[in-house]
Amino acid sequence: MTYCLGLVVNAGLVLASDSRTNAGIDYVTSVSKLHVFQPSPDRLFVLLSAGNLASTQEVLNLIRRDLDQPPSGLSLMSASYLFEAADYVGRINLAVQCDRGPALAAHGVSAETTLILGGQIAGQPPGLFLIYPQGNYFAASPETPYLQIGENKYGKPALDRIARPELSLEDAARLCLVSLDGTSRSNVTVGPPFEVAIYPRDSLALSYRLKLPQDSPLLAQMSQSWNAGLRKAFEQLPRFDWEAPPTADVPELQTGALAASS
Amino acid sequence: MTYCLGLVVNAGLVLASDSRTNAGIDYVTSVSKLHVFQPSPDRLFVLLSAGNLASTQEVLNLIRRDLDQPPSGLSLMSASYLFEAADYVGRINLAVQCDRGPALAAHGVSAETTLILGGQIAGQPPGLFLIYPQGNYFAASPETPYLQIGENKYGKPALDRIARPELSLEDAARLCLVSLDGTSRSNVTVGPPFEVAIYPRDSLALSYRLKLPQDSPLLAQMSQSWNAGLRKAFEQLPRFDWEAPPTADVPELQTGALAASS
Repeated sequence: MTYCLGLVVNAGLVLASDSRTNAGIDYVTSVSKLHVFQPSPDRLFVLLSAGNLASTQEVLNLIRRDLDQPPSGLSLMSASYLFEAADYVGRINLAVQCDRGPALAAHGVSAETTLILGGQIAGQPPGLFLIYPQGNYFAASPETPYLQIGENKYGKPALDRIARPELSLEDAARLCLVSLDGTSRSNVTVGPPFEVAIYPRDSLALSYRLKLPQDSPLLAQMSQSWNAGLRKAFEQLPRFDWEAPPTADVPELQTGALAASS
Repeated sequence: MTYCLGLVVNAGLVLASDSRTNAGIDYVTSVSKLHVFQPSPDRLFVLLSAGNLASTQEVLNLIRRDLDQPPSGLSLMSASYLFEAADYVGRINLAVQCDRGPALAAHGVSAETTLILGGQIAGQPPGLFLIYPQGNYFAASPETPYLQIGENKYGKPALDRIARPELSLEDAARLCLVSLDGTSRSNVTVGPPFEVAIYPRDSLALSYRLKLPQDSPLLAQMSQSWNAGLRKAFEQLPRFDWEAPPTADVPELQTGALAASS
């Protein structure tokens, strides 16, 4: 499984991914799912992938070959608008599905890959697109400034509560890590290294690209801090009318204190 | 869709459910999914249901008829152990699936219903079982003291972080409400009224049975409090090494303050 997500905020874009991949439960490895393309200084693209790993790699290979040997039609280099880049990647993705799908389906395997494309072309606003295996795509919007692919449910409630265009890039990156961390706790097929790419609007360059391994101190601190914060939020929930009111400002969850107030 | 869950803690059991049901997106109604059976003073059962509504009602009808007209074999009245009650309900459920399945499958509809059975028989410990449409079942354990049916992913991270046998019954009930509330925010087919049954160990009676409608003040307070707690937890996450440290003890999320610290 996989979990990737992107946030578009007023200050720019944040794209993040886990790195766990598995072909059956006894073949679990690690692979990067965050791919950066900057074919010229006037454009930058980040692609996140979830699905069949061979399909994903084929899509990436074809994108790279088109940059090396420019086709007559669209490529990441020739696209004038971000939606054209999404359309281009979607058509390559669909071609791969159509080519590989039947042979894989005969063995009960899906060839499908779903992608998130984020980036900016000079003179155009930055944007974030979800690209389906069928090649079509849609953009994130201020009302729902995040997109997710792969194992998206566990990490969605935090996004629904916190994601909004006013977040700073760093807060958006923290939110991605919280969402990834929660997902990896609830689904063992999602796991570190967690990769994060931070793109400040109109900069045409990533300001930071992080790769946080399992033993990353920052990841451990982030996870512990979120865990403690959630426990504190839980402890401060309103009491039922038959209970005594909560003890004020208990620094952390204390079972004894809670039992005493029940 | 549906979301039901149960927690077994040292102090007893808590079972909770949403009440939204839908047959297509244009037929959304409300129905209780929390069913209490107390055929005699020495036993109490709570059944939660997720799946085909007609199948669920048929299972409930057959259970009630067996209490009215005792069969020669098992019933909720004759079971000596809780696992026998789970086995009995599972066999009824399987019989309903086998009877209704083919006709429904011909129209692309699933007859499946999944159930959670919690309760206690005098002289036996309380317990909590998940019963599959295929009739088999398994019990919650101290390592994983919760069971979920229906739309279980959105509400799982909070359970994974907080659920444990030492929780008081009230804390367990609050956790169920937090899990239900988060799920209903992320999936519109899960919604209030939220029902909660609280069973103190060895009491053979529910101490509280709540039904919290959409406009319940307690539900609104619980949701707002959890939301505020999560935002505070988010705001206190560690900073990246290129950022200034967080402002200490900001009472609630202030976009300006966060932007200034980034």
